Amino acid sequence: MVTAFRQHIEQIISFSDAEFDFVFSHFQQKKYKKHQFLTQEGDYVNQEYFVLDGLLKAYVNRDGKLHIIQFAMENWWISDYQALLYQTRASYDIDCIEDTTVLILTAENKAKLCAASHKMEHFFRQKAVSGYVAMQKRVLSFMSNDAQSRYQQLFDLYPSLFQRIPKSMIAAYLGVSRETLSRLKLL
Amino acid sequence: MVTAFRQHIEQIISFSDAEFDFVFSHFQQKKYKKHQFLTQEGDYVNQEYFVLDGLLKAYVNRDGKLHIIQFAMENWWISDYQALLYQTRASYDIDCIEDTTVLILTAENKAKLCAASHKMEHFFRQKAVSGYVAMQKRVLSFMSNDAQSRYQQLFDLYPSLFQRIPKSMIAAYLGVSRETLSRLKLL
Repeated sequence: MVTAFRQHIEQIISFSDAEFDFVFSHFQQKKYKKHQFLTQEGDYVNQEYFVLDGLLKAYVNRDGKLHIIQFAMENWWISDYQALLYQTRASYDIDCIEDTTVLILTAENKAKLCAASHKMEHFFRQKAVSGYVAMQKRVLSFMSNDAQSRYQQLFDLYPSLFQRIPKSMIAAYLGVSRETLSRLKLL
Repeated sequence: MVTAFRQHIEQIISFSDAEFDFVFSHFQQKKYKKHQFLTQEGDYVNQEYFVLDGLLKAYVNRDGKLHIIQFAMENWWISDYQALLYQTRASYDIDCIEDTTVLILTAENKAKLCAASHKMEHFFRQKAVSGYVAMQKRVLSFMSNDAQSRYQQLFDLYPSLFQRIPKSMIAAYLGVSRETLSRLKLL
């Protein structure tokens, strides 16, 4: 699994074994059980997660309705980045859809790592920009009320997700009813 | 106006006059007239813009309906970041709501600047993360169909915008009808 993590970073930057060991020393591996929370609304958030194995969701419940903000499976990053950036409390929950193993990066270690390694600062900048771009696409598909394109984006991001989660969660991510979901193409 | 640009960057990092001159040498100042395009759908995108003075919008027209993705006024950055990141053609238009003066940063100069200056790489990472967080908040307000919170977010981002643009553009940003807009509080 650590090899997958190294490959993930080396899609953007490359480094020697010693450099990788230095990077890796800033992370801590941890296992969570299905249904276990990584973060709950109202918690202080001090870390982010890289998924080595498993599947998570970030979500809110509003007026009894589930809204899924993000899924995270292997090779994906997840946290409440707003809370992390502005040092506020979490505004949503993150929990495990499956048993999950993550690498934890604390805010303090990320700051140290980025200060010590220009390459890693570059890596995280590129990840932030691609996250921004993905979110903007999602905004646009919500604005034009285009459930089909939201479906397609989800499929492009996580093609194997559709075998791993119930359709009710896909509907909660797309912001559509189960009925609308079953009318979409590709299902 | 250059002082405002320096202050904007120094909210995140600080540098000497010589360092600032080096940073500034990567930018090029340019004026655009009201209604003039910075980017049109289908163009290759090779630069981003920092607004020194004026007001811009990024938008698409779909089925005769205007969807505004972003406004940019003084001290804001704008581009089609998807096109810039993946070297594809623009998927939306950017034009001037008022006469506008920008600083242009080409992709080549940004890459050079970030490679030469760890501080600027850090600055742009922080800007990308805060952009990601703002977009995620907007996704969440679309998911929960909460026009009031979208209105509030826009007001928080650009309080002075409401004196500068017609209500039809605010509605096109919020993804609501003019009628819904006039029912929202704060108007």
